[in-house]
Amino acid sequence: MQTITIGLLGLGTVGGGVVKLLQEHAAKIEQTTNVHFVLKRVAVAHLDKPRNVTLPDDTILTDQLDEVLNDPEIQVIVETMGTINLARQAITQAIYNHKSVITANKDLLAIDGPRLAQLAKSRHVDFLYEASVAGGIPILRVLSSSLATDQISQITGIINGTANYILSAMTSNNVSYDKALMNAQKKGYAEANPTNDVKGIDTANKLSILSQFAFGKALDPNKLGIRGIENITAAQLASANHFGYTIKLLAIAKRLANKLYTFVGPALIAHNDPLAQVDGVQNAVAVESNALGSSVYTGPGAGAKPTANSILSDLAAAANDILDYDCGSEFNNYHNELEPCSLTTVPQSYLVTTYGTSAKPNSTVNWQGEFSGNNYWSGLTPVISHQELESLLKSFPKSSAVSYLPVYNTAKL
Amino acid sequence: MQTITIGLLGLGTVGGGVVKLLQEHAAKIEQTTNVHFVLKRVAVAHLDKPRNVTLPDDTILTDQLDEVLNDPEIQVIVETMGTINLARQAITQAIYNHKSVITANKDLLAIDGPRLAQLAKSRHVDFLYEASVAGGIPILRVLSSSLATDQISQITGIINGTANYILSAMTSNNVSYDKALMNAQKKGYAEANPTNDVKGIDTANKLSILSQFAFGKALDPNKLGIRGIENITAAQLASANHFGYTIKLLAIAKRLANKLYTFVGPALIAHNDPLAQVDGVQNAVAVESNALGSSVYTGPGAGAKPTANSILSDLAAAANDILDYDCGSEFNNYHNELEPCSLTTVPQSYLVTTYGTSAKPNSTVNWQGEFSGNNYWSGLTPVISHQELESLLKSFPKSSAVSYLPVYNTAKL
Repeated sequence: MQTITIGLLGLGTVGGGVVKLLQEHAAKIEQTTNVHFVLKRVAVAHLDKPRNVTLPDDTILTDQLDEVLNDPEIQVIVETMGTINLARQAITQAIYNHKSVITANKDLLAIDGPRLAQLAKSRHVDFLYEASVAGGIPILRVLSSSLATDQISQITGIINGTANYILSAMTSNNVSYDKALMNAQKKGYAEANPTNDVKGIDTANKLSILSQFAFGKALDPNKLGIRGIENITAAQLASANHFGYTIKLLAIAKRLANKLYTFVGPALIAHNDPLAQVDGVQNAVAVESNALGSSVYTGPGAGAKPTANSILSDLAAAANDILDYDCGSEFNNYHNELEPCSLTTVPQSYLVTTYGTSAKPNSTVNWQGEFSGNNYWSGLTPVISHQELESLLKSFPKSSAVSYLPVYNTAKL
Repeated sequence: MQTITIGLLGLGTVGGGVVKLLQEHAAKIEQTTNVHFVLKRVAVAHLDKPRNVTLPDDTILTDQLDEVLNDPEIQVIVETMGTINLARQAITQAIYNHKSVITANKDLLAIDGPRLAQLAKSRHVDFLYEASVAGGIPILRVLSSSLATDQISQITGIINGTANYILSAMTSNNVSYDKALMNAQKKGYAEANPTNDVKGIDTANKLSILSQFAFGKALDPNKLGIRGIENITAAQLASANHFGYTIKLLAIAKRLANKLYTFVGPALIAHNDPLAQVDGVQNAVAVESNALGSSVYTGPGAGAKPTANSILSDLAAAANDILDYDCGSEFNNYHNELEPCSLTTVPQSYLVTTYGTSAKPNSTVNWQGEFSGNNYWSGLTPVISHQELESLLKSFPKSSAVSYLPVYNTAKL
């Protein structure tokens, strides 16, 4: 059995999970990988911080990143610090020092992943990041190995556990957004500042990475026209349910010829769609492809151990490449020139809800379904263009608030 | 770009699918694998048989297996003949001729897979068979890569599309087993002789392979105590539905310490279990593991293209190993000494149905639920031992037929 020496940056939830799993699963990992992993150094910001993880006896804890990054014995760096600039510097330095790098840092990857991947390739080291999307679901490796021979036409993800937990709680417990968010924060499923999760920013970052793997095209998350879930109302959930739908925060990328249509935001999804069954902090990714048709991958979207297992699977792959003298292949080596478009500009069906009265508003729309409750009215439009939607919204009396949500998979491309 | 030369055995549904996908997806495959695949020879039983697949111009069609197996230019043999003895001979000869082998032949793998895997390892060639379980779902590669670092406690599969189609049709269309089978045969989802599918034999063969990957322990499918779906009644389906369950043909392997409990047969599964949503010819595999908790993989269980894509993903892996001079690693290199036990002997809950009258039978059971219909009565038992179940069944009047089904995940180990 050969030895691979690791350096770990960060010892928070994910870093601690890596240390724990390396110990708990040591026997199986050694048998399946035929590698003995040695965690030589761990860098943390504060040496004195109490931690609920016990490092192996020989592991050296330090608050100097350089001690880890410049140790010539260390072959693989696992980055779990989670900030952007410091992580970028550390990863860059590790790559320059000819170390393979594993990270779960989706925020960094979304803005700088392709450049770092090219740098790693040019320095003949691996750069792997399975844990960056959908936590424990091995979706990136599935896309880059098993589905590398297939042609994908659409990928749809529920890839933010916080948002999905909040929407699930609002749906099944009939509570408001604010109350559901507070509960999520109490249970540790939402951060004190939940902006990234509830506004769809985290989802957009992950969609950018998924799109690289599925379509060979990284997306600029800043250009995605994101909508969040903060304004979803009980009226919308009740109306959606009446029409046979639930509401989920979806990430969609759909290819047609050389165009790639994307969407990040809440949408109605039919109760009998497999993604509609994905509740709480679970994540799921549905893939439409030529050979397979529909396939769905469901699992934990976050948490110390699921994320750590994705990092360990990267570690096994990196170790294998080091021992085979075969480092430097891109994790995603599929590249395509596709034109990014927004799915929101494509004709589709919408749930339109007006507030202030339960009376049906005047319009020329041929409503496909109607539902009203205490002080609101909802209708389901047929497939209409974005212009028709905008005229419709403008036609309502200005005193009554109005909201709309698209219906998943009704877009007519 | 380098070239890998392939020989194909069999040009039926799956073999034809391989030829078609190699052509349709050529551009993407070349980019993601960096390999140009050349299909040099194809062996068929009957040269004159009309086929709806067009071979590349330079591909040689032959009815002599040896012409393919002994061609020194051919580096990988893809076996899609589907019989047992001839396939075993051909695969053995290919391995002796230092060719890597890819097969979807689950019947052969279940009885002789471990021996062939050892033979391939000793001859330093790859032996891959992703397509043998759950068609297009990349479950074996997920288990042997992404989950190789995790510790699995249970694996549950709906892995026979024919049986699942029949049970789904019986449930949603309220038709008898015989009628659902006939419809499945008409649509090409069931063979003229459906024995292997409906009696659970195919499911047991696949569970043996899944168990190798999940637990490092191949099962002898002949020792599994299989039940089929031929005797499932409308009364059982209606009763199950009333109690909040559906009925599925399940394959289960559950590890506790050094024991491996297995089950192949129909069982009640709660409506809100993700597996209960898997309808028609879809397959799904649910994995319980220490790091991930629950993860579920859903997709097409059969069909030319899904199966062919799994073969192509094996082909990409084999090509990579050939070009890296790294052949001969086992597809599943996890091995464990576990004691096989039957889950049917473990205390659990059952649906018991008596026929001939809708009256509740006398018994000392503390029924958890009761339901009756035209000429039948059903009750849901609490968790009872196998002995208690047998006494209960014996206590019913001999004139009335009685049937029972276990309830999934109620076993108390």
